[in-house]
Amino acid sequence: MTHRIEKDSMGEIEVKNDRYWGAQTQRSLIHFDIGDDLMHPELIRAFGILKKAAAMVNQDLGKLPTEQAQLIIKVADEVIEGKLLEHFPLRVWQTGSGTQTNMNVNEVIANRAIELAGGTMGSKKPIHPNDHVNMSQSSNDTFPTAMHIVAATEIVHRLIPSITELRDSLAQKADEFQDIIKIGRTHLMDAVPLTLGQEFSGYVIQLEQSIERIKNTLPYIYELALGGTAVGTGLNTHPEFAQRSAEKIAEITELPFTSAPNKFAALASHDAIVAASGALKTLACSLMKIANDIRWLGSGPRCGLGELILPENEPGSSIMPGKVNPTQCEAMTMVCVQVMGNDTAITVAGSQGNFELNVFKPVMIHNLLHSIDLLTDACRSFREHLVIGIQPNHQQIEHFLQNSLMLVTALNPRLGYEKAALVAKKAHTEGKTLKQACLELDFLTSEEFEQWVRPEKMINP
Amino acid sequence: MTHRIEKDSMGEIEVKNDRYWGAQTQRSLIHFDIGDDLMHPELIRAFGILKKAAAMVNQDLGKLPTEQAQLIIKVADEVIEGKLLEHFPLRVWQTGSGTQTNMNVNEVIANRAIELAGGTMGSKKPIHPNDHVNMSQSSNDTFPTAMHIVAATEIVHRLIPSITELRDSLAQKADEFQDIIKIGRTHLMDAVPLTLGQEFSGYVIQLEQSIERIKNTLPYIYELALGGTAVGTGLNTHPEFAQRSAEKIAEITELPFTSAPNKFAALASHDAIVAASGALKTLACSLMKIANDIRWLGSGPRCGLGELILPENEPGSSIMPGKVNPTQCEAMTMVCVQVMGNDTAITVAGSQGNFELNVFKPVMIHNLLHSIDLLTDACRSFREHLVIGIQPNHQQIEHFLQNSLMLVTALNPRLGYEKAALVAKKAHTEGKTLKQACLELDFLTSEEFEQWVRPEKMINP
Amino acid sequence: MTHRIEKDSMGEIEVKNDRYWGAQTQRSLIHFDIGDDLMHPELIRAFGILKKAAAMVNQDLGKLPTEQAQLIIKVADEVIEGKLLEHFPLRVWQTGSGTQTNMNVNEVIANRAIELAGGTMGSKKPIHPNDHVNMSQSSNDTFPTAMHIVAATEIVHRLIPSITELRDSLAQKADEFQDIIKIGRTHLMDAVPLTLGQEFSGYVIQLEQSIERIKNTLPYIYELALGGTAVGTGLNTHPEFAQRSAEKIAEITELPFTSAPNKFAALASHDAIVAASGALKTLACSLMKIANDIRWLGSGPRCGLGELILPENEPGSSIMPGKVNPTQCEAMTMVCVQVMGNDTAITVAGSQGNFELNVFKPVMIHNLLHSIDLLTDACRSFREHLVIGIQPNHQQIEHFLQNSLMLVTALNPRLGYEKAALVAKKAHTEGKTLKQACLELDFLTSEEFEQWVRPEKMINP
Amino acid sequence: MTHRIEKDSMGEIEVKNDRYWGAQTQRSLIHFDIGDDLMHPELIRAFGILKKAAAMVNQDLGKLPTEQAQLIIKVADEVIEGKLLEHFPLRVWQTGSGTQTNMNVNEVIANRAIELAGGTMGSKKPIHPNDHVNMSQSSNDTFPTAMHIVAATEIVHRLIPSITELRDSLAQKADEFQDIIKIGRTHLMDAVPLTLGQEFSGYVIQLEQSIERIKNTLPYIYELALGGTAVGTGLNTHPEFAQRSAEKIAEITELPFTSAPNKFAALASHDAIVAASGALKTLACSLMKIANDIRWLGSGPRCGLGELILPENEPGSSIMPGKVNPTQCEAMTMVCVQVMGNDTAITVAGSQGNFELNVFKPVMIHNLLHSIDLLTDACRSFREHLVIGIQPNHQQIEHFLQNSLMLVTALNPRLGYEKAALVAKKAHTEGKTLKQACLELDFLTSEEFEQWVRPEKMINP
Repeated sequence: MTHRIEKDSMGEIEVKNDRYWGAQTQRSLIHFDIGDDLMHPELIRAFGILKKAAAMVNQDLGKLPTEQAQLIIKVADEVIEGKLLEHFPLRVWQTGSGTQTNMNVNEVIANRAIELAGGTMGSKKPIHPNDHVNMSQSSNDTFPTAMHIVAATEIVHRLIPSITELRDSLAQKADEFQDIIKIGRTHLMDAVPLTLGQEFSGYVIQLEQSIERIKNTLPYIYELALGGTAVGTGLNTHPEFAQRSAEKIAEITELPFTSAPNKFAALASHDAIVAASGALKTLACSLMKIANDIRWLGSGPRCGLGELILPENEPGSSIMPGKVNPTQCEAMTMVCVQVMGNDTAITVAGSQGNFELNVFKPVMIHNLLHSIDLLTDACRSFREHLVIGIQPNHQQIEHFLQNSLMLVTALNPRLGYEKAALVAKKAHTEGKTLKQACLELDFLTSEEFEQWVRPEKMINP
Repeated sequence: MTHRIEKDSMGEIEVKNDRYWGAQTQRSLIHFDIGDDLMHPELIRAFGILKKAAAMVNQDLGKLPTEQAQLIIKVADEVIEGKLLEHFPLRVWQTGSGTQTNMNVNEVIANRAIELAGGTMGSKKPIHPNDHVNMSQSSNDTFPTAMHIVAATEIVHRLIPSITELRDSLAQKADEFQDIIKIGRTHLMDAVPLTLGQEFSGYVIQLEQSIERIKNTLPYIYELALGGTAVGTGLNTHPEFAQRSAEKIAEITELPFTSAPNKFAALASHDAIVAASGALKTLACSLMKIANDIRWLGSGPRCGLGELILPENEPGSSIMPGKVNPTQCEAMTMVCVQVMGNDTAITVAGSQGNFELNVFKPVMIHNLLHSIDLLTDACRSFREHLVIGIQPNHQQIEHFLQNSLMLVTALNPRLGYEKAALVAKKAHTEGKTLKQACLELDFLTSEEFEQWVRPEKMINP
Repeated sequence: MTHRIEKDSMGEIEVKNDRYWGAQTQRSLIHFDIGDDLMHPELIRAFGILKKAAAMVNQDLGKLPTEQAQLIIKVADEVIEGKLLEHFPLRVWQTGSGTQTNMNVNEVIANRAIELAGGTMGSKKPIHPNDHVNMSQSSNDTFPTAMHIVAATEIVHRLIPSITELRDSLAQKADEFQDIIKIGRTHLMDAVPLTLGQEFSGYVIQLEQSIERIKNTLPYIYELALGGTAVGTGLNTHPEFAQRSAEKIAEITELPFTSAPNKFAALASHDAIVAASGALKTLACSLMKIANDIRWLGSGPRCGLGELILPENEPGSSIMPGKVNPTQCEAMTMVCVQVMGNDTAITVAGSQGNFELNVFKPVMIHNLLHSIDLLTDACRSFREHLVIGIQPNHQQIEHFLQNSLMLVTALNPRLGYEKAALVAKKAHTEGKTLKQACLELDFLTSEEFEQWVRPEKMINP
Repeated sequence: MTHRIEKDSMGEIEVKNDRYWGAQTQRSLIHFDIGDDLMHPELIRAFGILKKAAAMVNQDLGKLPTEQAQLIIKVADEVIEGKLLEHFPLRVWQTGSGTQTNMNVNEVIANRAIELAGGTMGSKKPIHPNDHVNMSQSSNDTFPTAMHIVAATEIVHRLIPSITELRDSLAQKADEFQDIIKIGRTHLMDAVPLTLGQEFSGYVIQLEQSIERIKNTLPYIYELALGGTAVGTGLNTHPEFAQRSAEKIAEITELPFTSAPNKFAALASHDAIVAASGALKTLACSLMKIANDIRWLGSGPRCGLGELILPENEPGSSIMPGKVNPTQCEAMTMVCVQVMGNDTAITVAGSQGNFELNVFKPVMIHNLLHSIDLLTDACRSFREHLVIGIQPNHQQIEHFLQNSLMLVTALNPRLGYEKAALVAKKAHTEGKTLKQACLELDFLTSEEFEQWVRPEKMINP
């Protein structure tokens, strides 16, 4: 007897004895054998929180007897602790409401509760997956609620701390480098000087503002669909269920979740997810710029810009001995383009709701969590294995600074733009220094040049 | 003598006498004969504001003599009033810093000022395009400043009012429709009822939150790069120039512009633009859902859903007489996919900064303004020619409501999910009403059915 | 002794005894702890084919002694058979050339060969991961070669058969449905009739042409970078290596691989991958349209279009009893938007090569294989669980056909567009049949109407 | 009397006397006041070709009297010659089938023909816009036919020649540069040498294959929807109309247009357009790589790579005198990201067909033509103002070549990877030449080193 019979409104189906899931999960395994992407473990955890909160509120409201409520809560805690992960085998590519994953959760909690209560798995007694675990709920409101719980949790507890640490490390570098004057580059071409610290300060504020922008998307993520049930009306729920369950989830997670002010939109559209992804791809743009800058500044060692010395973490080439590459930058920029791709998927999906439901929920949360996971880990890796080890190459920085023709800009207020241009052109075409050119053109004395063309005077207004 | 000679650091070039532009603009016309997209007129206007503010501050700081300042201000006012538009012929597809457009503005203002002063155009006296009009500035800080001025202005004065009016009209419809009970649809399939007003209320909050999200992007747009000059250091500016010029621009525009806290990031990246576009494409997702819903609900007249009667604005077919189509919805959804495409362009461009400069500025602002223009106009058109004229088709709405099998959901709390499912299936396969099925299955009496299955009780918790 | 010491040019590092990998793989595990996406198993298999072919050619060319070559070939066969998968733990988010995965393969083959030869793992004797397994190769040419091997194999052996079967099933349905006349719909509005078979024939040709388009991308995928080594010059390879190794790979795989005509482009850009993804997203557009049509035509059962009866695979709602949803369509459309997102990631990555190398290789092949896997499985699932079970709802189809006002189009050649429009409008506004309207307007006799307005005459020119 | 009365099935409306358009165009101007994007002039021209061909075939088939046919043909020729452009004021953002533009064409041709015939404009006599100009047609088949005519024409006559010329110029440069040995760069880091000609040869083949790929999309573009009329069945057309009209269009355009094998797909989906855009964005990836390489290789003049000397076309900075920037590269890369964005819009639009019609036709062709225009012009500009003027900076190239540590790779076959790595590391950390390091490590004699490490031996297998 390795299998038992499970039943749903379609009829009977065999399920392995060592699995808690029921008929609908089993059917989904057959009908949705598509790809390898499972529902994210943290999404399952979020469902545990939701089912616990719902059971508590249903008990409080007198709709669910204490004994049944307590059984559900007990198993929900096991889900939250990650103990039952192997019982959640369903993939992202299923029904677009996530119904099968909601039923997977309902079934697993019901059967595990039945087991704890000494009942017969599959009997739906004393705990019925629909009537008890799913009480006052629909897939249509639970799945988006779980989406929001997991999105907020991952953003607050993982992503933002990781970006913040990276920002802090970059800020520390900006401090360290504040007195290192270097040549600036615009259009990739030599420009006027700035300090290396100033250059890094741009990265710091980019991340700072990205953190703020991501935080600005949270109030909408905190709005929970729960209580809307099938179409947003809250049919079959107690009038206080929506409000109370949001409060309960806030209490469990210690995050300021609220009940969505309009449940119709909360089921039928996922603008909050689209907007959050928009903030993530903005971060990706920042990180791409930062990673590109750092690898270009570290390029060489002898035929590149070479202003930065990057940590040597691993051999860089299977054929070129001694080669070391800016691999952390490469991992980061690959993550950035993935986040841009994920954003496209989320955007298209988010535009495709119809009437009372958007049925692209699983693909949306899958991509959002993918972006969050990648950005969180990539920021950490980039910081630990790259940023904190960056060193300036003083010799190269000084060499470029002294050679640049764009120091001529300092003469604009003295000579006017056109004469200054003549100086630069002469120096360029004749391979001379600016000073030589200036003297030969009789525009300035040597003393005037020395007095006015001083990089250290050029790094501020 | 139809042409005059203009000069820049590259040498001489002929320019038509009836054009105010100078050598650099003329060169750009030759070198960048790419496509038809001109720099947006409102961007030119923003440059007028910027040049005016700069001249005022330079005068105040004693860097620019009053006479010259006043000439520049006078012409800048003409630019702001749109009087000189024909003198701005340059395209989007030029240098990525927008230098040529900045110089176009400098040259036009200089020559027009020279004309007003009775001088010789092209002489750069008494007004020099670089030394006077561009005083304390660089393309690298002026172009992003103009980007932010125009983005903020267009968002605040055009886009947000247009969305707001659409939201208001939808809210009025939601009110009008608040007592019309209709069938809900999830997965496109019959579901439990809600009111037509509730359905429209979802659209209202979507737009409301989109407005908020767009407003949330403004604080970053209000930050101006001006004062950063070439690389962000503010070289060749007075220490108070950045702050004062931002205040002056705020004064002229009556919008709360500030000086960007970090000029390096303000030149080298455009996260504020990427983020604003992210908010616009989130709005596009909302509008796509709304427009799709409305055209589906209005589909028919005899072979579709037909719950809404849409205004008949124009004949719909060149071959099928009497056909009327949901054309406003179509224009809107086309606009939405364009905004998504524009967002991709902006995102990729925004990720490609190097060192002290992002050289994808023109393509970024071009796409952002394209999205703003289209969304502004499409919201207005959609409202005027569609939303305010929508009427419910009471007969069809009632017909569907009475026939739907999903009213069975109301029996869940009485019969449990499984018995209720039996009722629905029997009715479905045998083509019966729910009541018939219920009675035949002996689950309920006729009175009980009548009492419990009442759509008007199903539209609230 | 659970660990041994492995060494590379960076120094020593501990590796678990039960793992074949060496120092560089171990370092990568530490430095690239980013996300959960492992290199695709089929990519590892492709590397097995590559390493086998290289060893054979190196032996043939007299560069590698037979004994060593045979050891490498033996282990490469194990890799091809998938026996060593647990020894390939590296993630997508690593160095952008895939160097670490190439070294992972080199190290595993070397150590496993050493084990077979009775040597000491980590000793690099008698098989050295660089000098022997990687002989005549660089990561820069092996990784793109493996990318092309796996892409071609998966497209030819998995994707195209799956699309073809779906096309065939749809073609069979088109045949079955060829005599069922139904109302057409344009702009979602009632239009003139066609047969259900004609409607499905459109899907068939869309898939047919998508198959052709995907095949058109293969010639470029068949071009292999192998022999280019580090920068495309073929340094350290025998002049015949490139050609011979491509032939060997063609022989092993039975696919017409060739040596890329230009190795510089083959390392530095991946246009072949971008183009293949472009064909996949075109397929995604087709599938999205097909899946949307089918779910809309199957919408209802009582409040939708209801022209098709879709297989009932599973209960559709956790709250609405008896509800069945078009879940296969939903899985398919979610897959389609994912493919669009993957295409964005591939496109951006493909544009970012620099000089002799594009360092976005892992993210590109990851997304391409993701798209291939999802489309392959989704086409199969869609066919098996949906298409083959689709049935027409004759009654509903007939009902709509008889009621449509657009049959009036048949009168265009008789009455002219404007009179025909009058008929349609009268029928519409007065709720009458076209015939009634026609008679009341005195445009036709009853006999004429019957003779001219016949749907069965309207489905052909 | 500045206005006349025009009429359609909605009623009467005033139109200016000096405009040929009729009621439906006028209504569209009112109802679709959205943005500034007009229908592309070349699309209008394509409509002229279509209307001419249709009139000719209708005449040949005896459906249209000669006199009327000849009037239509005469005016269609005026449309083809671009004489009537001011009479086509409609925007992209209208009905998604392009009905209003088809009617605009019908109305203008009718009224202009009436004028030529001495009739009264607006009278629809002797030429009726629907019954005569639109005879045997529907917007649903004409608009996609015009889309394909214009797409093919622009690709064949403008885009491909422009890419081809650019490829040829790059090929000439590759020839010129074939003996210039330079350092290679992978991961932006110094790698082994190649010739500058080899580097450019990669660009050449990228463009060559892009041309092939674009050509591969043409067979599907050559398939014309004409003859499908409203839903693809060909209702109200002569059985030979589709075939004959395609042949006529082929004759007029001298391009191998055919009648689409399946008209249902030809109206309801636009995979051919999506696929063409996919080929264009692949080209954009190639061009982005090429433009980036060239600007990086030309970076400097003193603080960058500086291996190429780029033409100085214009002053580069409004503040930094003497600065010259790689502006053609910047225009090109901006065009590339725009093409990527356009591709997203086209892809989403292409996925959104329903039943017998895709109603995103105008936005699709708008974006495709935008991409074609930009790529055509940008390739020309890039070639003329940049590529043909590129010069190598021999001194800098030689300097880098002699200094690179990666020449050590040539010693791999002699010393093995690990010893070679020691040499490179020693040279790197101690700031020595490879030869010095080699001798100090006692790995080679001076003669051996000189014999084996020779860049000119490293550029081939």
